[in-house]
Amino acid sequence: MANDLDISRAATMQPITSIAAAAGIPDEALELYGRYKAKVDPDQVPAREEKGKVVLVTAMSPTPAGEGKSTVTVGLGDALARTGRRTVIALREPSLGPVLGMKGGATGGGYSQVIPMEEINLHFTGDFHAITSANNALAALVDNHIFQGNELGIDPRRITFRRVLDMNDRALRNVVIGLGGPGQGTPREDGFDITVASEVMAIFCLATGIEDLTSRLALITVGYTYDRRPVTVADLGVQGAMALLLKDALKPNLVQTIAGTPALVHGGPFANIAHGCNSVIATSLARDLADVVVTEAGFGADLGAEKYMDITSRAADVAPDAVVVVATIRALKMHGGVPRDRLDEPNPAGLEAGTANLRRHLRNITKFGLNPVVAINRFTSDTPQELDWLLEWCSQEGVEAAVADVWAGGGGGPGGDELAGKVLAALEKPSAFSPLYPLQMSVEEKIRTVVQEIYGADDVEFSVPALRRLEEIKANGWENFPVCMAKTQYSFSDDVSRLGAPEGFTVHVRDLVPKTGAGFIVAVTGAVMTMPGLPKSPAALRMGVAPDGTPSGLF
Amino acid sequence: MANDLDISRAATMQPITSIAAAAGIPDEALELYGRYKAKVDPDQVPAREEKGKVVLVTAMSPTPAGEGKSTVTVGLGDALARTGRRTVIALREPSLGPVLGMKGGATGGGYSQVIPMEEINLHFTGDFHAITSANNALAALVDNHIFQGNELGIDPRRITFRRVLDMNDRALRNVVIGLGGPGQGTPREDGFDITVASEVMAIFCLATGIEDLTSRLALITVGYTYDRRPVTVADLGVQGAMALLLKDALKPNLVQTIAGTPALVHGGPFANIAHGCNSVIATSLARDLADVVVTEAGFGADLGAEKYMDITSRAADVAPDAVVVVATIRALKMHGGVPRDRLDEPNPAGLEAGTANLRRHLRNITKFGLNPVVAINRFTSDTPQELDWLLEWCSQEGVEAAVADVWAGGGGGPGGDELAGKVLAALEKPSAFSPLYPLQMSVEEKIRTVVQEIYGADDVEFSVPALRRLEEIKANGWENFPVCMAKTQYSFSDDVSRLGAPEGFTVHVRDLVPKTGAGFIVAVTGAVMTMPGLPKSPAALRMGVAPDGTPSGLF
Repeated sequence: MANDLDISRAATMQPITSIAAAAGIPDEALELYGRYKAKVDPDQVPAREEKGKVVLVTAMSPTPAGEGKSTVTVGLGDALARTGRRTVIALREPSLGPVLGMKGGATGGGYSQVIPMEEINLHFTGDFHAITSANNALAALVDNHIFQGNELGIDPRRITFRRVLDMNDRALRNVVIGLGGPGQGTPREDGFDITVASEVMAIFCLATGIEDLTSRLALITVGYTYDRRPVTVADLGVQGAMALLLKDALKPNLVQTIAGTPALVHGGPFANIAHGCNSVIATSLARDLADVVVTEAGFGADLGAEKYMDITSRAADVAPDAVVVVATIRALKMHGGVPRDRLDEPNPAGLEAGTANLRRHLRNITKFGLNPVVAINRFTSDTPQELDWLLEWCSQEGVEAAVADVWAGGGGGPGGDELAGKVLAALEKPSAFSPLYPLQMSVEEKIRTVVQEIYGADDVEFSVPALRRLEEIKANGWENFPVCMAKTQYSFSDDVSRLGAPEGFTVHVRDLVPKTGAGFIVAVTGAVMTMPGLPKSPAALRMGVAPDGTPSGLF
Repeated sequence: MANDLDISRAATMQPITSIAAAAGIPDEALELYGRYKAKVDPDQVPAREEKGKVVLVTAMSPTPAGEGKSTVTVGLGDALARTGRRTVIALREPSLGPVLGMKGGATGGGYSQVIPMEEINLHFTGDFHAITSANNALAALVDNHIFQGNELGIDPRRITFRRVLDMNDRALRNVVIGLGGPGQGTPREDGFDITVASEVMAIFCLATGIEDLTSRLALITVGYTYDRRPVTVADLGVQGAMALLLKDALKPNLVQTIAGTPALVHGGPFANIAHGCNSVIATSLARDLADVVVTEAGFGADLGAEKYMDITSRAADVAPDAVVVVATIRALKMHGGVPRDRLDEPNPAGLEAGTANLRRHLRNITKFGLNPVVAINRFTSDTPQELDWLLEWCSQEGVEAAVADVWAGGGGGPGGDELAGKVLAALEKPSAFSPLYPLQMSVEEKIRTVVQEIYGADDVEFSVPALRRLEEIKANGWENFPVCMAKTQYSFSDDVSRLGAPEGFTVHVRDLVPKTGAGFIVAVTGAVMTMPGLPKSPAALRMGVAPDGTPSGLF
């Protein structure tokens, strides 16, 4: 069978100018990056009175088997476009680190991909590089402030803002910098995160424009003084330079799917320590261009969708009008206790047991006042009996569902038509969206609400350091921020091994990290990896370029 | 008086498609980056039988007063274009680090600038970010190799390849990485250089194409094994991924001058630990497009021009046909002992004394078989008497010279006409270029030759570690590489305070660093700064973006 790269290369791309013209993007708004990529200046696109509707694609708890959420997002967008609705897809940009490490990026799969796949996965239009630069300029200016006399009295032991690289580089997780004597700075502990974990990335994706971006950057807390007062970017006066470094990156990137549907691929924050969705600016622009906007939230619905509702929707006017929950026969079996190497075999009991996971996610969506649609992403090992059984199960649960055959049948084929029909029907139904909790609730209660209402936990337990942080958050006036849960994506609990729909568990909050620029409090449960490492056999070692410039090893 | 940014903004830019069409660049070779920047694929530009001639712009020993070498390069290009000759300018890209630190970039000044100035100085087309990524991917893969079992037996104490950031970040000069326990890597000393100091940057600028690039990357020595054998990129198998990360960056960037002359701005290695000239690919492409190509070498002629002749010219077929040496009345006075705060006043004795510096540079150029032309870059404080005196001095020295009034009179005005005339005349004269030394000479003798013939030193002295390195270089078979001198740009000697044309001095080589991918041996004299720091009041603190996207503070 053809792999994703082969399919992507075999696709006939339209000039991005044609895609833009068909999407109603005026010429003066378009900045070309080669023939098949462009940046779009939202200020040059007329705002519409009636904005497009937003379809949020999320998923059951992910498994190592892979659910294909991006593939469904792209395939659904293509299928909606086939109905004649003006459709724009909004997706996150892939990070270079994982591309060199494990796998290609997050550009969908099979015949449901955004292209040009190689360029999107390598540098793209340079947005992540701009974010890396803005992040590291701030870091350099913090250390330079200390070196030049430390007028603000920053405690080098209490700097919380870290440097970043868009790279999987384990050796940079914990470092000591400023060595070499008085002329080289002040020695202190530091560390590098991957760029997608930067607070600058989160801000970039939540900002509604350059002014909002600058204001949010100014609010970043970089650390604390010797007398424990927070030090912000505004105290250092660096928000202007950071905004300048980000101003071109802030324009959404236009590409196309294999079927020629316009896609805005822009921004890409982590879905654990950040909110895990493409930029608000891209989604807003898409709503000015299209009748229907299909966008995707990171990880499973307990993380990505909850954050979309409680963080992203509040930061900008982008509440979802419909929610698609991606499920697969294989993932359900895994949640039902079937071992990974037996997923290809029919296992009705395992399949049924696994529906507990999906059921809890579906129930959660209704808690936000929204009606979910289940997208059963078809894998080649699925039998018709299994698919029929799952459709029937959904029907008994009172939930709309459709099989999406978009990996092999995407690219403008009929594989997503049924799903598109269900989604369009859902968009017609009244919905009464509301976030899960009011912002006035205490941080502790907000966390308890998420943990009990969404995860199904009995309660939450705070570590001693986390309790101390709760006090600091109150003292610093940060109580009204929403919470951003950093939890494993593989389980509703904070224990990766508890698949399905665990009961009778407690979630342990180890630490709380205020992100005052992004505007949320990260609640850390378990070990959260903000700088991945490379595997034993990194994908990079198989990559190359032919003399004619054709890349290899990139999938 | 208008500043550089005001002048740059007031300029009317032509669409880059028009500039490209006028330069004879076929449509299929052009990849647009917005309206005023493009990458040009050299493989899509027909090669010409008769290549354009190369004018190398270099300078007397620089002073803090500023000589305006880039300004003269741009102004000369504009003036040559005015004569009707098909002209292309080839320049280095500016680094972001200094832009945030001290000053704008290296895009010329006044009415002799390449534009859009802001975009060229900020991210541009992302080349330096690609180089940073390729460099740091290698570094991560080295540490990952050790972490995953260290099959090659790399000695973590003897890794010579460092990470880079395009940032002035003093605190990263000396760091300890890999802290945090066995799961986080192996603790070792490391450090970050600025991206322009990366060997990957030097290779990028010397490579003749993607295959040559890949071969050179494979030859980088990253460190040594426990039994002191060199470890190369080829041993790790990373050259393919690095080339892939660089493949799009490798296409030269097309912009325009204020007068509308096409300029290829591409690559930018340091002129001390590297060779300090724009990419060979850009210069070669320019020679396929134009009758005359004006390019610039970094620092003074003792460093930049010597390296152009002995390193760049050998790496590719780009020997200069004429050499312009930029001099200023102010710099001559400073070399003649006039204090910096008195440079605005006439001082005939000081001026005459300072000519000793220029004379030695002019003599040096003839040692390569080339006839120099002196460009007297006019500053507003220069008097007609001073300029006439210097023209007369040049005449007595038997050297062609012209006053270049290109800062205020550039942009297509007549300020560079006389210089252009002299340069065209020089191009008609026969020249007999040859490098200074044969490659078969020992490294020690090559260094001695440069030091005696070019700097005018009595001899060279090697430190004990440098002598040990000479042995290693012989043992590893690296004896036939040219040498790349890392010396202060402010003096012919290795003592910054000895201005003019010092006599009776010895140059001290502290260390030798083999750059086996770039293909030269760096001879380090004095302290060479490969990671600059930010000043007390960094330019970044004055930068910002207006709500309409207009940048401020960038000059």
